[in-house]
Amino acid sequence: MYVILVYDVSVKRVNKVCQFLRQYLNWIQNSVFEGEITKSEYFIIKETLKKLINEEEDSVIIYILRSENAMKKICIGVEKTDMSHII
Amino acid sequence: MYVILVYDVSVKRVNKVCQFLRQYLNWIQNSVFEGEITKSEYFIIKETLKKLINEEEDSVIIYILRSENAMKKICIGVEKTDMSHII
Repeated sequence: MYVILVYDVSVKRVNKVCQFLRQYLNWIQNSVFEGEITKSEYFIIKETLKKLINEEEDSVIIYILRSENAMKKICIGVEKTDMSHII
Repeated sequence: MYVILVYDVSVKRVNKVCQFLRQYLNWIQNSVFEGEITKSEYFIIKETLKKLINEEEDSVIIYILRSENAMKKICIGVEKTDMSHII
């Protein structure tokens, strides 16, 4: 499965959330991660986020696609993607 | 077509960008808009954003899906969606 994950998390918790997400997904832009993951990784992400965020204040949305090909992606302006994981 | 639009725009320009996007899409979360649009609306959005943002500094990504059914969406924590446009 391919996911696009967007988060709106208080500055108090955002570093922990980002550090965790970087283990599974690629950082795309401020507040956005993306990547191909397995079903079990998806459940780990979901359950861990529930512990890391404050569910009364923070918000995370996960868009789940069958594959990366289910969408087309265009970028206007700077491409901020962190490609460091590829090196 | 259904689009998910995420932006990372300097605070100097972000209000203009948001006000413009609200005419075509639904505000979902900090930095995220979503919605069903026509091809011509898509071109208006793309071309107007190029004028509103600074292409050297800001970044907008548009994920284009055939329809809303091409994805599943889950939310963890607060649902911040602004439903005011529906009332």
